[in-house]
Amino acid sequence: MTLRLIATGGTFDKHYNELTGVLGFSDSHLPAVISRARLTVPVALQTLPLLDSLDMQDADRQRVLEACQAADEQALVIVHGTDTMPQTAAVLGAARLGKTIVLTGAMIPYEIANSDALFNLGFACGVAQTLPAGVYVGMNGQVFAWDNVTKNRAAGVFQPL
Amino acid sequence: MTLRLIATGGTFDKHYNELTGVLGFSDSHLPAVISRARLTVPVALQTLPLLDSLDMQDADRQRVLEACQAADEQALVIVHGTDTMPQTAAVLGAARLGKTIVLTGAMIPYEIANSDALFNLGFACGVAQTLPAGVYVGMNGQVFAWDNVTKNRAAGVFQPL
Amino acid sequence: MTLRLIATGGTFDKHYNELTGVLGFSDSHLPAVISRARLTVPVALQTLPLLDSLDMQDADRQRVLEACQAADEQALVIVHGTDTMPQTAAVLGAARLGKTIVLTGAMIPYEIANSDALFNLGFACGVAQTLPAGVYVGMNGQVFAWDNVTKNRAAGVFQPL
Amino acid sequence: MTLRLIATGGTFDKHYNELTGVLGFSDSHLPAVISRARLTVPVALQTLPLLDSLDMQDADRQRVLEACQAADEQALVIVHGTDTMPQTAAVLGAARLGKTIVLTGAMIPYEIANSDALFNLGFACGVAQTLPAGVYVGMNGQVFAWDNVTKNRAAGVFQPL
Repeated sequence: MTLRLIATGGTFDKHYNELTGVLGFSDSHLPAVISRARLTVPVALQTLPLLDSLDMQDADRQRVLEACQAADEQALVIVHGTDTMPQTAAVLGAARLGKTIVLTGAMIPYEIANSDALFNLGFACGVAQTLPAGVYVGMNGQVFAWDNVTKNRAAGVFQPL
Repeated sequence: MTLRLIATGGTFDKHYNELTGVLGFSDSHLPAVISRARLTVPVALQTLPLLDSLDMQDADRQRVLEACQAADEQALVIVHGTDTMPQTAAVLGAARLGKTIVLTGAMIPYEIANSDALFNLGFACGVAQTLPAGVYVGMNGQVFAWDNVTKNRAAGVFQPL
Repeated sequence: MTLRLIATGGTFDKHYNELTGVLGFSDSHLPAVISRARLTVPVALQTLPLLDSLDMQDADRQRVLEACQAADEQALVIVHGTDTMPQTAAVLGAARLGKTIVLTGAMIPYEIANSDALFNLGFACGVAQTLPAGVYVGMNGQVFAWDNVTKNRAAGVFQPL
Repeated sequence: MTLRLIATGGTFDKHYNELTGVLGFSDSHLPAVISRARLTVPVALQTLPLLDSLDMQDADRQRVLEACQAADEQALVIVHGTDTMPQTAAVLGAARLGKTIVLTGAMIPYEIANSDALFNLGFACGVAQTLPAGVYVGMNGQVFAWDNVTKNRAAGVFQPL
């Protein structure tokens, strides 16, 4: 495969449970998204436990790191919650894996009107194939280096430190 | 601005006219798409006459070339119909403008269910900022050089020659 | 069953063919719509040949009439193209079947943004169960008697004669 | 006006707040829905405070009752949360207002994929114009009398007592 997508949950993959009225996780939307994107690039999809990124613990970030280490692909896209995306990026960045790893996510869940999920995933799938080895956040149409990015929660956008 | 989007029509921007039942062109969807993508990268939008790419003539391709030449930005994304995207890419590629120009489009109009438009635009906006100067087609999650790409109409995908 | 839905095509059920770029017919959307509507009323779905109503001939309207005659249900909803909906209503109305038959459709296909299809189908499924026996058109949030309805094509709405 | 829509909130009108990640209330979707439904029936829209129906108190139900009493229209549709829809229906039913009042709502918010909101509203707008005076719940493609309806929360559907 050329490209690996790793699902870890986050707003991108939240699902509305009509019996409980809660936005949580069910199956990842990524298989449907991959089909919708009409990808012909060889792509592997790996689904890790789907978590709200505010619930991610060190062990969860280690699991993401191990998935990146084990991957045969040079280009990796990680779908991740936005709230702690820089923290996971820092764990991956410090490991200096020699691959191009792009973390992305969404401010609005894929299944909700006006979602940015599909744009962001397209952006990340592009730059993961074109950037040099390293760890990046791809959000708001911009590439951020893993050690120079923060989420401005009041504005709902990513920016340099 | 960092990035310039140039709308030329194509399936991406087709609109259903409920009085005539015809899929044609009205206003471009790109202002809404840019807002939805929550871009913070400085972006200029330029809307040329919206055309089905099968209707594009030499003069129309010259207009696209002139827009690229006149642009102050180094990174350009052209939203274009898929049927003659390689032809327009060839016109732009032969001009050797020293900018990074990525043509993209959609197999399904933005306003129709299961559209690939948003993914493709995100992909193009990413690689336009990361590829070296040159002219490319960004479709199906892949980057194609302008002089080595064709649309396989039977399969509905782009591929090398 | 309590309610029978009869699909005959029309704008409601048009589907975008991404290989040809044509809005035509594939499978009816009604199975998905019925699931989405979370119906618990016992409902039968019958799919006749899907046609643009401008292409409907006398034989096609006879087929619709025969489906209504053969139905065991007292409440029938016919999903139909808008352009000749009053003509088919007239054929059914003249037959005095003693059932409640409501024709409905859509100005925008179900799979296109801002479609009225789901609202109209809900409207028709409601009034088909509550109106006395007779033939009606249910569009624009109104019930029209079969012998006092026309489509105002310039305005894209139904109105009395 | 012929028909009055009264918005009271509920799942139908929930909105995802991208800064907080919470499904709550902002402006009602009903103005957009009315436009989308291409209604030509004269319709008044009245927006009461938007509430999760689990948060509705006696005073809130009195406010709904007063809105129904004050309405000039004979046909009223109330968009309401599903969890306590039968309780509000009971308050209205006991008041014997001599109008046709139909409560409806949604299992999935209007702005989330696969929502039943538009179907249900169409259904309610239809039966509100065709049923005799009384108070009803219109959900799942069925009409329920106000004094013989309950929500089966495990199944997510309405049923007779």
